[in-house]
Amino acid sequence: MPGSLPEVRAILFDVFGTVVDWRTSVTRHLAAFARSRNLTADWSLVADSWRARYQPAMEDVRSGHRPWTILDVLHRETLAETLTEYDIPHPDDAAMDQLTRAWHQLDPWPDVIEGLTLLATRFTIGTLSNGNTALLTNLAAHAGLPWDVILGAETAQAYKPRPAAYLTNVALMGLEPHQTMLVAAHNSDLAAAASAGLRTGFVARPTEHGPGQTSDLTATDAWDVVADDFPSLADALRCA
Amino acid sequence: MPGSLPEVRAILFDVFGTVVDWRTSVTRHLAAFARSRNLTADWSLVADSWRARYQPAMEDVRSGHRPWTILDVLHRETLAETLTEYDIPHPDDAAMDQLTRAWHQLDPWPDVIEGLTLLATRFTIGTLSNGNTALLTNLAAHAGLPWDVILGAETAQAYKPRPAAYLTNVALMGLEPHQTMLVAAHNSDLAAAASAGLRTGFVARPTEHGPGQTSDLTATDAWDVVADDFPSLADALRCA
Repeated sequence: MPGSLPEVRAILFDVFGTVVDWRTSVTRHLAAFARSRNLTADWSLVADSWRARYQPAMEDVRSGHRPWTILDVLHRETLAETLTEYDIPHPDDAAMDQLTRAWHQLDPWPDVIEGLTLLATRFTIGTLSNGNTALLTNLAAHAGLPWDVILGAETAQAYKPRPAAYLTNVALMGLEPHQTMLVAAHNSDLAAAASAGLRTGFVARPTEHGPGQTSDLTATDAWDVVADDFPSLADALRCA
Repeated sequence: MPGSLPEVRAILFDVFGTVVDWRTSVTRHLAAFARSRNLTADWSLVADSWRARYQPAMEDVRSGHRPWTILDVLHRETLAETLTEYDIPHPDDAAMDQLTRAWHQLDPWPDVIEGLTLLATRFTIGTLSNGNTALLTNLAAHAGLPWDVILGAETAQAYKPRPAAYLTNVALMGLEPHQTMLVAAHNSDLAAAASAGLRTGFVARPTEHGPGQTSDLTATDAWDVVADDFPSLADALRCA
C-alpha cells in the first residue's frame, strides 16, 4: 500500500453491485410481481434487460440532452420499456411505482455488514452511488447498512463517471480528494475516481451479472487497495 | 394529535440547540483554547457573542448579497470578529481552523440518544440543520447520533428559514411535505416549516442560551406535537 493512505479519512462506496446484489434482488421482486399476475418469463433476463437500460438513460442526462433527472424516474421509464420488450402487460401506475421501488430493497452481499462495521470504527463511511438520496436511504434501512452519510448523484446533480459526481461529494465531506477513497467492484468507476484524485479500492463481485459474468472479474489497474471482500478491505486498512 | 399524522414517514431535526447543547460545548472548547494560551475571559459570553453573529452572517447569504457559503466558512469569519471584539489575540490559521471546528464536536442533550433510537424504529430520522454536511457528519460521529440521512442548508443550497431549505430536503427524501416532520426547539423554525407544509414537533430547550433564557421557553403555536424531551416525543408518536 502507498504510504499516503494514512491521509484517508472517509471511504465512500459504489452501491449497485459493490454493496448490494441487485440482480438476485430485482429478479425476486419481478418474480413476485409476476406470481400475483400469473405471468411467466425468465425474470433474471428481464432484470438484466432493465439494468442494460441504466447507462443509456443516465447518458441522456450526462450529455445534457436531458435536464437533471433522478434515478427513480429513469428506473420507472426503463421498467416500462423493459416490460414492453418482453410483451408483459403494464400494470397500473401504483404497481409500476411499487415495482420501480424494487431498487430500494436490495440485499447486501453476505460480507458487507461485517466489513462496513469494521471500517466505521476508523473512517467516515458513506455512499457515492448513482442512486438518488431517497433510494439510498431506504436501501440502507432495508439492508441495515450503517452509513454515516448518504451521498451520490443527486447531491452532486451529476452522474458518475462525470468528475463532478466525485468532486462535489468530496467537497460536501469537507475533504480533499486524496483524503477520500472510493470502493467499487467496477474498474471504470475507479478509473474516473482516480482521475479526480480520489484513492481507490477494488472488491471483485464476480457474480454481480450472474454466473456467466466476463467483466470486472479482477482489478485491471494498480488500485490503492484490492481485497476479496469487505472484511479483507477493513483488514488491509487496519480496522480489524 | 391530528388524525393525519400517520402519514409522517420521516422526522428531520434542527440540530443546534434542539439536539446538541452548543453553548456548553463551545464554551468548553473556548476555555480549553484559552488555557493553552493563558488567556482569561468569561468564555460563555464569548460563546454567546460568536453565536449572536450566526443569523446576520447567514442573512448575507439569504439576501443574495453574498453567494452560497457554508457555515464552516461563516463560523471562521465570525470567530475572528468575536476574538477581535474581546481583544483576544488571533492564533495562527491552523488554530483558528481547529477552534472553528468546535462546532463539529458538540454534546447532545442527555435525552437525545434514547429518543432518537426509539424514533428510528418507526421513522427515517435525519438532520435539517443550517450546519454544512461535513459539520453534521462529524457531529454525528462525535455525539453518537444515529441519523439515517444528513440533510441541511448545504444539500439545499439555502439557509433556513427560506422555504427551499425545507422543500429541497423533503424532495431529496422522495416525500411530500406533509409526510415529513421538523422537530425544533425554536418556534420560528417550526413556523417556516409549517408554512412549507411540513408537520411540526416542538421540544423546549429552556437552557440553550444559558440560565437567563427568555425566548422559546414554550410552544407559541399549536404545533402538531409538543413534548418535554425526545423520549416523550417518541411516545407521542407511538414508538415506545
